[in-house]
Order: sequence, then C-alpha cells, then structure tokens
Amino acid sequence: MKHFDPNCVFCKIADGFIPSSKIYEDDEVVAFLDANPVTYGHALVVPKKHYDTFLSTPKDLMNRVMNVAQRIGQIDVEVLGAKGVNIITNCYPAAGQAVFHFHVHVIPRYDATDGLKIENNPKSDINFPSVVEKFKGKL
Amino acid sequence: MKHFDPNCVFCKIADGFIPSSKIYEDDEVVAFLDANPVTYGHALVVPKKHYDTFLSTPKDLMNRVMNVAQRIGQIDVEVLGAKGVNIITNCYPAAGQAVFHFHVHVIPRYDATDGLKIENNPKSDINFPSVVEKFKGKL
Repeated sequence: MKHFDPNCVFCKIADGFIPSSKIYEDDEVVAFLDANPVTYGHALVVPKKHYDTFLSTPKDLMNRVMNVAQRIGQIDVEVLGAKGVNIITNCYPAAGQAVFHFHVHVIPRYDATDGLKIENNPKSDINFPSVVEKFKGKL
Repeated sequence: MKHFDPNCVFCKIADGFIPSSKIYEDDEVVAFLDANPVTYGHALVVPKKHYDTFLSTPKDLMNRVMNVAQRIGQIDVEVLGAKGVNIITNCYPAAGQAVFHFHVHVIPRYDATDGLKIENNPKSDINFPSVVEKFKGKL
C-alpha cells in the first residue's frame, strides 16, 4: 500500500503541495472546502495517507476521518446555521466517486433550493430473502 | 437521553418488535434491508440505542455503526457484485432524514439505471475565506 500517490490531487492537498481552504488538520486527517461546493460550507474530510475508498481504508483511520466529519457537521448546525447535514462517501465510479482518495463529503443544508438533490426511486421487485441469504455467514 | 423511543420504528426493529430483514446484529448495532430499497442490497445500519442523528450519536457508537457499514459495503462488492457503493447518512429533515434514529444507508450500485441519483449543482458565489473564518478555533 503506497501512502502518497504523486498523481492524486488529494494527496497533494494533504501535503500542502496544492493550496486549499483547509479548515482542520491533525497528524492523520485533513479537512478542506470542496472546490466545487454544492452549498455554503461544503467540506471534504480525507486521511493524509492514500487509500482509494472508504471500503479500503483501515478501520481506525476511517473512524478518525468520520469523527472529524461529525464535528464539522455539528459546527455546520451550531455556527453556520445549517438546518441539516448530509454525510456522503462514494466508493468507485459507479457510485459517483471522481477522486480516488477516500473522502467524506460534509454538506450543510439550508433550504430546498440549495445545490444538492438526492433522488430515490425505490424498486418494488427485490427479493429480500435472497439478499439476506447472500450476507449469511459473511458479517 | 432515552435509549428506547416507543414511537421510533427503528427502535422497534432493533428490538425485534417490528420484523425486518436483518443481515447483522451484535450487542450495540443492527443492520437490516431498507423496506424501500433503491437498489438490490440497500441496507441500513443503526445503533440499538436511540440517537436522533449521526451528529448526536456518541463517537464510539458511531464508529461501531460505520465499521459495520464498511463491512457491508465490502460484501456488496465481493458477494453481491456491486460496481460501487454509496454510504450516506442524512441529518435532519432539511437533509432528507425521514426516520429520526441515526441510520447509515449502504447502497450498492450496479449501473446508471438503478434507483439512486445524486445531483450536484455547484455554486459559484461562495466566499471561501468567510467559511474558513467560521471554522477557526472550533475544530
């Protein structure tokens, strides 16, 4: 596992090589404002070490990232005046991941006209027992 | 802080009072299939104790929930054949939260025609330094 990918923009931001609007930094985690914010305060939280996705990041480090995301979300409500917060991490391109360095979006929400829309179209043809069966003994 | 809310559907599912398609359970965390799945395998992970949102859940318990979400996402890829996974938790109605018991959506993704669409409309009028200023000394 390499920990700095010279082709990764988030590695370079974490390293300070590419400038960003940082709002938090410790020895393992950095948080900065998304360069294409969907709302006021839209932040990204990333581990300094390079891991592709949430799914491939070691638990302890993933937890440190989530703890910072939680604190940022609390500040979104307490200080920025957000009425809600979405916490989102997308794994792989099929889920909309664009930068392949694990990052958590912390998106403060203010009203229905802000920049994020999550559309759900529930499926009615899913065989629940077959899903349960697939998870059996795996977790 | 009450730990069982008799009016909360997820408290009742965690308790076994309302039946669900459970895929995981330990002493603190339960995972079950979303009753309105947007894709095959769409699961929810919740703490057994009642906390309204991700933001109000104690760190250690939140981390246990996220660890189960990570493992489910890995199985989505390894066993269910997902090409991607979205991990989402919505805090408060303004962010689309419908059940006020902290829950993480683990949504396997298969193709562009599946049931989830996340639309971003980035804003170009955001004053980044003013956001950074608001976080100063808070984190």
